[in-house]
Amino acid sequence: MELENPYLIFLGDVPDALGAKTGLGIVDWRREWCVGQWRLDGCKADAGLPEMDAAEAARTGAKTMVVGAVNSGGQLPMHWVSSIVAALDAGMDVATGLHQKLADVPEIRDAAERNGRRLIDVRHSNEKFATGKGTKRPGKRLLTVGTDCSVGKKYTALALEKAMRDAGFDADFRATGQTGVFISGRGAAIDAVVADFISGAAEWISPAAEPDHWDLVEGQGSLFHPAFAGVSLGLLHGSQPDAFVVCHEPTRTKMRAVEHPLPSIREVIDLTIRCGSLTNPAIRCVGIAVNTAALDEAAARSLLDSLAGEHNLPATDPVRFGVDTIVAEIKTSFADA
Amino acid sequence: MELENPYLIFLGDVPDALGAKTGLGIVDWRREWCVGQWRLDGCKADAGLPEMDAAEAARTGAKTMVVGAVNSGGQLPMHWVSSIVAALDAGMDVATGLHQKLADVPEIRDAAERNGRRLIDVRHSNEKFATGKGTKRPGKRLLTVGTDCSVGKKYTALALEKAMRDAGFDADFRATGQTGVFISGRGAAIDAVVADFISGAAEWISPAAEPDHWDLVEGQGSLFHPAFAGVSLGLLHGSQPDAFVVCHEPTRTKMRAVEHPLPSIREVIDLTIRCGSLTNPAIRCVGIAVNTAALDEAAARSLLDSLAGEHNLPATDPVRFGVDTIVAEIKTSFADA
Repeated sequence: MELENPYLIFLGDVPDALGAKTGLGIVDWRREWCVGQWRLDGCKADAGLPEMDAAEAARTGAKTMVVGAVNSGGQLPMHWVSSIVAALDAGMDVATGLHQKLADVPEIRDAAERNGRRLIDVRHSNEKFATGKGTKRPGKRLLTVGTDCSVGKKYTALALEKAMRDAGFDADFRATGQTGVFISGRGAAIDAVVADFISGAAEWISPAAEPDHWDLVEGQGSLFHPAFAGVSLGLLHGSQPDAFVVCHEPTRTKMRAVEHPLPSIREVIDLTIRCGSLTNPAIRCVGIAVNTAALDEAAARSLLDSLAGEHNLPATDPVRFGVDTIVAEIKTSFADA
Repeated sequence: MELENPYLIFLGDVPDALGAKTGLGIVDWRREWCVGQWRLDGCKADAGLPEMDAAEAARTGAKTMVVGAVNSGGQLPMHWVSSIVAALDAGMDVATGLHQKLADVPEIRDAAERNGRRLIDVRHSNEKFATGKGTKRPGKRLLTVGTDCSVGKKYTALALEKAMRDAGFDADFRATGQTGVFISGRGAAIDAVVADFISGAAEWISPAAEPDHWDLVEGQGSLFHPAFAGVSLGLLHGSQPDAFVVCHEPTRTKMRAVEHPLPSIREVIDLTIRCGSLTNPAIRCVGIAVNTAALDEAAARSLLDSLAGEHNLPATDPVRFGVDTIVAEIKTSFADA
């Protein structure tokens, strides 16, 4: 799916910043696409954008209103419906990552039809994917993989996009989850694809490109997560990465939502190379990204030094220390390619 | 999804036996569930059942008409619609494995509503699955895995069900594909499940059971198939098999629909144990099932002897030589369990 920018970010009346995580993430990475924020009475989140409603945003040039807020349960609160209808009546598309489809609400469906605008449910792709082919495509690809879910795979891929562009690379972030799709304006929520088409969708997400172009593909789940490893493996095969970065959260003792312990970084590197070789025999690890938020700076540096030595790879916290060391490793590692 | 038997097998007017593969497969394994076959003028397939139409089948006690035929493209031919309506009007449910949903045809949807009967689209499960938990469930499980797609995984699981029951085991075939669902009256087409729920669906397919009960789970795809490995891995994790059988077709040079060579049986055993250990550390291989149809009997026996020696496991062609050697291996291998 493709979203047209500029965006108006709708934050509803969420009670805290967590409820506006999607909207805040978009503003973090694509401030230049966001003309304003629309907040209802009682909203406790603030993305720091100019305040405006749908009519004003449309006058300012906004093409899509992104519902960047979520209430518990992922359902659409009925008191947000009139704002969505107003956005459609003002001539914008409306995009959400909610479980509930926008078109399932009759007033919204009618308003979209009346105005000839699109309702974009990022969790429910209408894209028809082919099954994967596994054939090598031109262009270079990097995939972020993890010891678990929610360990910074999206953040690391976005940080690499920025740092690689700054370093003169031709590089694009490729989204595989809903917030990522809003941030890149394109992509697919790969965990919502029908199982037969996981790797086919991944092939569509990072298509053939110029030989020195880098796609930075947002990873999902973990090959070691008993619920989601199938998604991770299909994404690995379809992305056919030349390079990967292992993302890790060192204070976590169990994988998310299950009782399993986290795998070691070494196990993740080994199994990623073994399975990834199927569609790219040259796959290699180029770095380790650790979320050290729970550690003080000395402890963080000590952990990263120790991991770097153990694996002979750059190890960094992308939030705290940036990803320049990984970009340098990519530059060296692919100097001859 | 659950199907009520007895079945009426609808064969339409398919031009050959291949078009009636699903119907013939049901009769092969569940003859006792089938009261008759309904063939239209020009049908060139024959399941050897008594000929009858919907009204007669309903009088004979049939509860579900299974569309056991498929035309090229998986669409429903319009001249089959009146037969489906007749089955619903006679009081039966109707089940198909076509791509097209039955309810998308207005006459069929109306007839189902009018008669209060179910339309069962095996490719489009309405079952709401949870995400996988990876927690060990009581009961024993065997999964058939493959060096490729379409190498006899369903046949092997069904042959094991029969042979194990004959040998006194409490054993049930568990379906993960559409023909398998018709044969067992229960299960899910796992490749049609949303990616996030592959292993959760597999957990639902083979639920907790008595400690000495065996579920014989139909495998899908291959961990080495670049299009479908994600499905295979999620199924492996969710099935948490104690035992697995590797299925192989020795004359194939490329994997189905892609350019990749087949992996070796050794590679399949190794990666299945490595990945399967995540949800069942005691996983072990108990046999090799080879489709030797392309070989004469001497060549087939020689190949099987050589594989048995190389892997120190029973190797057989389930169609040609049965699976008793694998059942004996299971008996020995799990004697203390």
